[in-house]
Amino acid sequence: MAVLNARSVLVTGSNRGIGLELVKQLVGKSNRPEWIFATCRDPEGPRAQIGRVWKKSLTTCQRDTSEPSSVKDAATRVIERLKGVGLTLLINNAGIARINLVMEAETPEDMSEVYKTNVIGPMMVSQAFLPLLRKASQESPQNGMSCSKAAIVNMSSEGGSITTVYMWHLAHVVNYRCSKAALNMLTRCQSLGFDKDEILCIALHPGFVQTDMGSSVGQAPLTLDESVQAILKTLSRLSEKDNGTFVNWEGNTLPW
Amino acid sequence: MAVLNARSVLVTGSNRGIGLELVKQLVGKSNRPEWIFATCRDPEGPRAQIGRVWKKSLTTCQRDTSEPSSVKDAATRVIERLKGVGLTLLINNAGIARINLVMEAETPEDMSEVYKTNVIGPMMVSQAFLPLLRKASQESPQNGMSCSKAAIVNMSSEGGSITTVYMWHLAHVVNYRCSKAALNMLTRCQSLGFDKDEILCIALHPGFVQTDMGSSVGQAPLTLDESVQAILKTLSRLSEKDNGTFVNWEGNTLPW
Repeated sequence: MAVLNARSVLVTGSNRGIGLELVKQLVGKSNRPEWIFATCRDPEGPRAQIGRVWKKSLTTCQRDTSEPSSVKDAATRVIERLKGVGLTLLINNAGIARINLVMEAETPEDMSEVYKTNVIGPMMVSQAFLPLLRKASQESPQNGMSCSKAAIVNMSSEGGSITTVYMWHLAHVVNYRCSKAALNMLTRCQSLGFDKDEILCIALHPGFVQTDMGSSVGQAPLTLDESVQAILKTLSRLSEKDNGTFVNWEGNTLPW
Repeated sequence: MAVLNARSVLVTGSNRGIGLELVKQLVGKSNRPEWIFATCRDPEGPRAQIGRVWKKSLTTCQRDTSEPSSVKDAATRVIERLKGVGLTLLINNAGIARINLVMEAETPEDMSEVYKTNVIGPMMVSQAFLPLLRKASQESPQNGMSCSKAAIVNMSSEGGSITTVYMWHLAHVVNYRCSKAALNMLTRCQSLGFDKDEILCIALHPGFVQTDMGSSVGQAPLTLDESVQAILKTLSRLSEKDNGTFVNWEGNTLPW
């Protein structure tokens, strides 16, 4: 069975939910990455739980991934820490939704705000860390592509599948759906643009998970633990044949 | 053969390119709509050509479809003109692109600006004109759905197809591609949300056309006349089976 052997990992939006659980499970792995970078907007905030894993030799930093200067500062700090080593795995997990249940209630402000965090943020973070991802790819002795060599994982959602419009009956949330469809397009563009660098790029649907966001629209069937265990297993199995695709937590391909 | 018999039509972004040609050909039709509303940001601007068809009893107005107050003003004026009649066909044609040829050169400002015009604009315009579209649908004696009864046509692009990533080799234009993928999602959401009102909603790819935008990325094969003639023919043929789909100028379905 394939094993995820990422030398260095960065997870955005790691203060709670799936981001925090990813960090926790990565920290707890027997073949734990040498470097785990966990960023979030407000690590000291009332709903942030990152402090609990903070002491386990993890680098956290306060960053707003939708602010260009904040993203650049984060890249500078990570470069300093890595001391010439590349970044193996970038997980663009930070994301928001404005729960507008019906389409008529959608607002330009919510559309704009959600797009900034869910699409422009991952684009900027990927640009800022591209030199480090390229370095990881070049350093790796592996052929082909994998999350143990160099990869960008964009946390998307089947709610952004234009084909299935997943859970439409529960919530219209047009701001979120449009942003995730756009994030899927960004992922495809990244997969084409970074193909020559052998950086694997995928869009990932984590399932309908018992997080603050998931619970705000209905009874989510998946626990955080189940979703993230499956995600890490899936990441360990991905290769160049998956480049530029949309997969769920179990590794099944989803339609755009 | 089906004929487009729209009693009233509104076209945004009608100062030049496909928007202007749509207005010209609608004005020139033997069964011309009773009301044609043509909006654009700057009808007196140096590149605007709408003045040439202005005098042919057409209602033009200066509107920025990405500004909420401007959209509301336009709806108020159209309601006054229609004197109780509904709006049959809304063509959300206004759109922009920032020609960033390579992905690394993409900027948060361009991403944000293009999303505002290409996605948030059509969303707001559709919301503002929804009561008039519902009225047209209710007034119509026709069964089922058609562009002669009540419809929203969102001018998209195959450049926004996540499946084909059309013309990637010519220009990456991530700002434009992400916005059009999101516009396609908006179209799908509208088709589900307005299904009960029998308002047909489609995303349309006009082809690679000899417009200012088309010519900025390469040698476009289609003339404006060819594209718009085919588009109007396609619109005349659409029915409820096409609701929520993505079609090209000739009416062929495109993948998301």
